Amino acid sequence: MENKIRIVVAGPRGRMGTETIHMISKTPHFELAAAVDHKNEGMSIKDLEGLPDIDAPIYTDIKACFSNVETDVLIDLTHPEAGKAHLQAAVDYGVRPVIGTSGFTSEDVVRFEQEMEKKRLGGIIAPNFAIGAVLVMKFSQMASKYFPDVEIIELHHDQKRDAPSGTAVKTAELVQKVRESKQQGHPDEKETIQGARGAEIEGLHIHSVRLPGLVAHQEVLFGGEGELLTLRHDSFNRKSFMTGVRYAVETVMTLETLVYGLENILD
Amino acid sequence: MENKIRIVVAGPRGRMGTETIHMISKTPHFELAAAVDHKNEGMSIKDLEGLPDIDAPIYTDIKACFSNVETDVLIDLTHPEAGKAHLQAAVDYGVRPVIGTSGFTSEDVVRFEQEMEKKRLGGIIAPNFAIGAVLVMKFSQMASKYFPDVEIIELHHDQKRDAPSGTAVKTAELVQKVRESKQQGHPDEKETIQGARGAEIEGLHIHSVRLPGLVAHQEVLFGGEGELLTLRHDSFNRKSFMTGVRYAVETVMTLETLVYGLENILD
Amino acid sequence: MENKIRIVVAGPRGRMGTETIHMISKTPHFELAAAVDHKNEGMSIKDLEGLPDIDAPIYTDIKACFSNVETDVLIDLTHPEAGKAHLQAAVDYGVRPVIGTSGFTSEDVVRFEQEMEKKRLGGIIAPNFAIGAVLVMKFSQMASKYFPDVEIIELHHDQKRDAPSGTAVKTAELVQKVRESKQQGHPDEKETIQGARGAEIEGLHIHSVRLPGLVAHQEVLFGGEGELLTLRHDSFNRKSFMTGVRYAVETVMTLETLVYGLENILD
Amino acid sequence: MENKIRIVVAGPRGRMGTETIHMISKTPHFELAAAVDHKNEGMSIKDLEGLPDIDAPIYTDIKACFSNVETDVLIDLTHPEAGKAHLQAAVDYGVRPVIGTSGFTSEDVVRFEQEMEKKRLGGIIAPNFAIGAVLVMKFSQMASKYFPDVEIIELHHDQKRDAPSGTAVKTAELVQKVRESKQQGHPDEKETIQGARGAEIEGLHIHSVRLPGLVAHQEVLFGGEGELLTLRHDSFNRKSFMTGVRYAVETVMTLETLVYGLENILD
Repeated sequence: MENKIRIVVAGPRGRMGTETIHMISKTPHFELAAAVDHKNEGMSIKDLEGLPDIDAPIYTDIKACFSNVETDVLIDLTHPEAGKAHLQAAVDYGVRPVIGTSGFTSEDVVRFEQEMEKKRLGGIIAPNFAIGAVLVMKFSQMASKYFPDVEIIELHHDQKRDAPSGTAVKTAELVQKVRESKQQGHPDEKETIQGARGAEIEGLHIHSVRLPGLVAHQEVLFGGEGELLTLRHDSFNRKSFMTGVRYAVETVMTLETLVYGLENILD
Repeated sequence: MENKIRIVVAGPRGRMGTETIHMISKTPHFELAAAVDHKNEGMSIKDLEGLPDIDAPIYTDIKACFSNVETDVLIDLTHPEAGKAHLQAAVDYGVRPVIGTSGFTSEDVVRFEQEMEKKRLGGIIAPNFAIGAVLVMKFSQMASKYFPDVEIIELHHDQKRDAPSGTAVKTAELVQKVRESKQQGHPDEKETIQGARGAEIEGLHIHSVRLPGLVAHQEVLFGGEGELLTLRHDSFNRKSFMTGVRYAVETVMTLETLVYGLENILD
Repeated sequence: MENKIRIVVAGPRGRMGTETIHMISKTPHFELAAAVDHKNEGMSIKDLEGLPDIDAPIYTDIKACFSNVETDVLIDLTHPEAGKAHLQAAVDYGVRPVIGTSGFTSEDVVRFEQEMEKKRLGGIIAPNFAIGAVLVMKFSQMASKYFPDVEIIELHHDQKRDAPSGTAVKTAELVQKVRESKQQGHPDEKETIQGARGAEIEGLHIHSVRLPGLVAHQEVLFGGEGELLTLRHDSFNRKSFMTGVRYAVETVMTLETLVYGLENILD
Repeated sequence: MENKIRIVVAGPRGRMGTETIHMISKTPHFELAAAVDHKNEGMSIKDLEGLPDIDAPIYTDIKACFSNVETDVLIDLTHPEAGKAHLQAAVDYGVRPVIGTSGFTSEDVVRFEQEMEKKRLGGIIAPNFAIGAVLVMKFSQMASKYFPDVEIIELHHDQKRDAPSGTAVKTAELVQKVRESKQQGHPDEKETIQGARGAEIEGLHIHSVRLPGLVAHQEVLFGGEGELLTLRHDSFNRKSFMTGVRYAVETVMTLETLVYGLENILD
């Protein structure tokens, strides 16, 4: 019989944490071993509202948790400050970390990489667990080699304040690494109403749609003679991160160092 | 037996004219009676390159044509100047006109309307025969009553110089007649790269995509709580005008006055 | 100052009821006057979990409610049996009913119509409040007059058991009323794998996609020479019914009889 | 100064050949050195109707052509029988072949591979030059590792007789190599009209839409919890093969053996 992967979740009551615990409870080869919370010491997951009926102990001290509970993987969904301390604790106790908080500097990442490589301990830091969105970025970079004419349409709910979205900008940057800077559209094109042709990053145009009802969507269009290639990702709700979290947990079991960015464990 | 509709085409060698003659030859209840061309007097359609093997006489003088050939409908696909003269000739000879040229003033239209109403003669002037594009405009106006949050994405080949497209602007104007002016997006929204939110017409945003391979496409998006309504038209080639031309020919047979704009004979 | 529309909601704790009360609380010209629930007599909406902080009394007896509370509109979101009794009570008390339950026979509808016409009382019974979905059906019927070649793709989550969806079948029926029965595709077309061409209703093909992550989506495609018209509705969550409920409430204020089906109050 | 790539085109008057010669004339670093045709010996490309004004000699004998004209690459767009002879001639004369005809057996391919490897001569046989379509297949295989729930919608003009398309079946086969056979949809799902759920290949469903106006389109949908990934390719006309032909010509200059299938030179 294959052993289950024993998981500790830090931040069990946040929205991501709650979804993650539900995901674990529905994944046959995963097991929730314990949770780390800044309150509720001594209680059990099943005592908390909105969480599934699992009898897993809650610790406020992550070291006490790792001392008492056999753990394969830590999933941290707290905040930058706690995240860094939790990562260090995981490394000290030989637990594979899956870290969903941002705020790590390049120096932090390099230091942890070196320490974990020595210990041959797998881990991942992923600021974005939406595996579908990450795949669209990856495929966009690959496709732009053959189709250097690219435009991005990103569509979000109308409560989003900034445009274009961070994902669109990151996608454009990835494309720029592969294609040369390229002025798209007709050399003499003219906007009769300002802004029609969107935001421009080295010749690549990004269009930001904002409408009530929308959640988070991105479409990357590649035009070639007589053809169009379209890569689209729709994120309908927060559960869209769970495929990525699940994949990260499975992958850290086979890694022997720290990896930064979900895109670097996709092949 | 139902009689065929006998049609004269003015401008048989242009791209629209050529498509129209092919369309007539494939429509069982249509018959090409003759053509009006500024040259090739006395020749037959079948003598011209790229046209189907139909034995229909070519006239350079439209009055001679109408005097000699029993005609139900004139389809004019020439240019503004010739179009106006051809329309007058059709009215004089009691032939129902389907005019595809632009350049008529409001005064022209009113004058022809009055004359044709007296004669109870049906006719149509249509600057745009793309029935699908016209339907998207019409439906957009209807939908915006219930969904006042609207954005338009129009996509064209990268040889197009102006942005946004005339169709997109016309669609926005039709929507504005129905909804009140409305600032869309978050009141504090901010473009981190200029132009991201597109062109704005009284709060409605239009985004213009230009890529090689594309032809002429328009998408109108309506957002409501938890839902999205999308109306899209793709024009892949010039043949897309033929459904509208065919419908106009059938409709003028039942009209008793002149109508301006394809949208006004759609119900 | 315009008076607010005073609304009683029957079924305040169900999912639709809860959304409706939130919608009312956010609509400036709407006011929640009271609620009818089969329990919680004498309590207030603000006492119930998950509902907004509105001080509106709860009644278990709808007649007592209407006797005590000035009401313009009843929104009933209960179940067929209660719905019928509530409709009768509304008619008796001169309250305009907006009924979201199904289960009315044609005889029921005719009888209520006659009674309400005599009283010149507006009302609506709507088995489907998703105004976007209803518009797609309505527009599909209009478009099929010009584009008789139609295919429907409906996409739902993979927990849906029946295929095709009821909405797709209803859309196909509406299209069939307008176009003649028409065998689509090549006369000699052949499925090399059975089912490829989808379900067929008098020559019109329907395709049912089922995938995790999807909610409820429908796309109606109309093909013509050189062009494609696409009408699409995406329902992302239950809130998508609220635009229709809000519109129904506003509309019954101006009606003088009972209308069955949201499509019949859209113009 | 970089030298131009000198190209011989076999089959210059066919539709693919005509497009290819136009593409060469518009590509600055390509040069049409000669053409091989089964007639028109001694004439020049500029003498043939529909071809650009290039003075390149036409040979009926490919060996005579290669003996007289310095050639880097042969593009063969003829038919299986001629294609095999042309490939052999190219190998004999040290010309890099880009072969667009099908009909090679595995034995043929292995034999040519061995011969070309010895000579360190690059070449490619590509039954499908539509690089966008090939990328969708490649990305589909990659994505199905993370999203094993997949459905394919392929859309073609209504003159296509077979359903599903060969590309859809090939895409499904590529996906099956990566994911395990998997019954999609609800275990108890039921078709109320036969065919609604499409054609099935080991649990993966394919839907074939046929409409006038359409050309050749494919959409691959991947569903995960709360998200949807969509990969789409639209082929609007025959020119869509030119990006792939151009890329193949550039790539054979750097290869040292024969490659079968465009997907194997994309990275």
